[in-house]
Amino acid sequence: MLADRFGSRFSQRAADLAAHGTNESHFPDMPPEAVIQPETTQEVSDILRACHAARCPVIGWGAGTSLEGHALAVAGGLCVDFGRMTRVIEVNDADMDVRVQPGLTREALNTELRATGLFFPVDPGANASLGGMAATRASGTTAVRYGTMRDNVLGLEAVLADGTVIRTGTRARKSSAGYDLTALLVGSEGTLALITELTLRLQGQPEAIAAAVCGFDRMRDAVDCVIATIQLGIPMARIEFIDAEAVAACNARSGLDFPRRPHLMVEFHGSDTSAAEDAERFGELVADLGGSDFAWAQKPEERNRLWQMRHEAYWAILASRPGARGVVTDLCVPISRLAEAVEETRADIDASGIPGPILGHVGDGNFHAVLLIDPDRPEEKRIALDLSHRMVERALRMGGTATGEHGVGLGKRGYMEAEHGAGWQVMGAIKQALDPLNLMNPGKLVPDPEG
Amino acid sequence: MLADRFGSRFSQRAADLAAHGTNESHFPDMPPEAVIQPETTQEVSDILRACHAARCPVIGWGAGTSLEGHALAVAGGLCVDFGRMTRVIEVNDADMDVRVQPGLTREALNTELRATGLFFPVDPGANASLGGMAATRASGTTAVRYGTMRDNVLGLEAVLADGTVIRTGTRARKSSAGYDLTALLVGSEGTLALITELTLRLQGQPEAIAAAVCGFDRMRDAVDCVIATIQLGIPMARIEFIDAEAVAACNARSGLDFPRRPHLMVEFHGSDTSAAEDAERFGELVADLGGSDFAWAQKPEERNRLWQMRHEAYWAILASRPGARGVVTDLCVPISRLAEAVEETRADIDASGIPGPILGHVGDGNFHAVLLIDPDRPEEKRIALDLSHRMVERALRMGGTATGEHGVGLGKRGYMEAEHGAGWQVMGAIKQALDPLNLMNPGKLVPDPEG
Repeated sequence: MLADRFGSRFSQRAADLAAHGTNESHFPDMPPEAVIQPETTQEVSDILRACHAARCPVIGWGAGTSLEGHALAVAGGLCVDFGRMTRVIEVNDADMDVRVQPGLTREALNTELRATGLFFPVDPGANASLGGMAATRASGTTAVRYGTMRDNVLGLEAVLADGTVIRTGTRARKSSAGYDLTALLVGSEGTLALITELTLRLQGQPEAIAAAVCGFDRMRDAVDCVIATIQLGIPMARIEFIDAEAVAACNARSGLDFPRRPHLMVEFHGSDTSAAEDAERFGELVADLGGSDFAWAQKPEERNRLWQMRHEAYWAILASRPGARGVVTDLCVPISRLAEAVEETRADIDASGIPGPILGHVGDGNFHAVLLIDPDRPEEKRIALDLSHRMVERALRMGGTATGEHGVGLGKRGYMEAEHGAGWQVMGAIKQALDPLNLMNPGKLVPDPEG
Repeated sequence: MLADRFGSRFSQRAADLAAHGTNESHFPDMPPEAVIQPETTQEVSDILRACHAARCPVIGWGAGTSLEGHALAVAGGLCVDFGRMTRVIEVNDADMDVRVQPGLTREALNTELRATGLFFPVDPGANASLGGMAATRASGTTAVRYGTMRDNVLGLEAVLADGTVIRTGTRARKSSAGYDLTALLVGSEGTLALITELTLRLQGQPEAIAAAVCGFDRMRDAVDCVIATIQLGIPMARIEFIDAEAVAACNARSGLDFPRRPHLMVEFHGSDTSAAEDAERFGELVADLGGSDFAWAQKPEERNRLWQMRHEAYWAILASRPGARGVVTDLCVPISRLAEAVEETRADIDASGIPGPILGHVGDGNFHAVLLIDPDRPEEKRIALDLSHRMVERALRMGGTATGEHGVGLGKRGYMEAEHGAGWQVMGAIKQALDPLNLMNPGKLVPDPEG
């Protein structure tokens, strides 16, 4: 019995179940029947073998920062909490990669790396676990330069539904040796396997960082500025958009006084010369497109203050309507359609009567509206979900995706068929092949099995 | 009947069968039973549906440049030749992407793109078809900067074994919407589906290009130079290694007079300022590590001459032993092990008595030996295959892969279990789920089905 073997690392206490059944989405809490905390891959394998024999569903748990209800125990079962698997196993300086356990958070990894001159660039804002970030194919502010988890996971160790341990990828920088199982598991949201180890690509800390913020009259000009920057090949490390409403919220929380208009926040990484040159060329584009209030943050503390504002934007927005709950949307469109998508969304939100500042990763065509609803007024939740529904429809109509970076979970499962067509059945066939008993995070991502 | 419907686009003429049964590997020719040339996705779907009903194997054919016997008809069947599906469907300037048919070659695409200021960067040397490059996860000289086909295919249209047409990916730059079917099909070598359309990421043509060549006393110093360059974050667009034997062959063919020692060939893309700065910083590293003969190719014609030499190296090497056939190896290791891997390989080849110049994509840890064997002396083929076998063992021992960029085909299938362990059975399970009759390029990549 797992309970006997794992002792205090196996829990059915109400508080533990509740803590692993909450979520940041609009879905009700759905606690698992038990929580277990493995310390080794072998223990994870033994747990999955036992669950397989008992036909017990299994749900992975990282830092609990999912926004789409990924870890809700819709069919009960056992929650495997990776909170005790947080080691950095090996840093390879020359190869610029690192092997880590899945429960390690990205901030903890970067703290450990500080002395090496290397860093892990993927930054979704929340201090998520790296296993969870891989499972949901997370990205964030730096994807425009460094890519998403898709690009930064070199290999995985993972445990299949029957307890089999597999290793995917190698430490070589590339390979043509067969199906890309690493890429298949990244974004599979625990429905195919539990990740027990990750090999991650690292980056050298840039010699110089230049950051700036600037305002535009119209969102469309800001987007045009970004398109021109990309086309000129000026490498941006981050390029973030915040709309006038989001600026107002950030001003109120952080005591700042940015003009109430759309802003871009940008960062360049490079040598002293190249970062300065990139910044100068970007500044010329901003001027051409009518941008103003162009301000450089040259000192680290100014830069940190700027990005602190961006990272705290979600909380600033929440605070702008006291007592409100946020429904966070997440769409991504081809960048040529971004201005149109944001403008339509802005108009739709304005007509709805509920507040919803917009901010996004403009270099990827990805943006979020934080719809602020009063939890005591059920009609506001309905309005928010209708707005969210129309946003997804808009994204799909424009050749984009229902989720740029938050993942499918429960929240976007209803759109998979519209987005993927027959491809969604292919995902179901792969799931069926690797998890025929449907025990791995059942009820998520893929179609329900027949019968 | 396909023969009736396709008329002259369906052939069983001996010459057509022979032309689609040859290959560049050491394997004997294995012609298909018929060749068909579809013009539309609908035709491909109809062909696959008919083959499914008739239990007829299906093998895709691009430009026939595979080095590992990917398209050999080991179980007979129908060869689907994409030579009539070569259109550029749509160029999206603002989004920097393009939709193409699979038979289009990379050179033809770049010719069509010339006026747009954009280019497609993946360059495996051969003028391969883009469908074939995706199917084998090709890369080449520019992967160190722009990535492999894994990184440059945004989405696919593909036809499954039963004729079902699926679309994977979107035109958005990123997505977290479910399993990454694009990444699963890239590198699947026609064993899961036939690719009928690709959406590819494009790059802006760089404002400035700086190229250089330099010699080193020891291969190890050249590799250390590359590692230092990467760690300093100096962005190289290409960084190629050719050993002393390869230099001699190139000198002989192209009338050049590079010293007979290991060389690096490097290229920087950027603005005038940044390319010059990158070049200067790289030159300092070269000097620190004892490199010499450092020569810039500043004019386009000088640069073209340099890369012409690299692109023709394979033919130069072949010509260095008249009448010889080349057995091309392809391994990839973590870059920290590259010097050791090349040195061991060099010593092993030298001891074997057959010539085998080495060249490679040093920024990726990927290199090739071109083993020159006399086709009339069967013992040389045995020696070459033994060398190749030990190279793969070496790569796997060092944490690398059996194939960096040439793919599995027939040549590397025997190493899949050693490289992937239980993961190879997972690939087999996915194949079984999507192609239960084992009709798509049977006998390649995955384990044989049971029974």
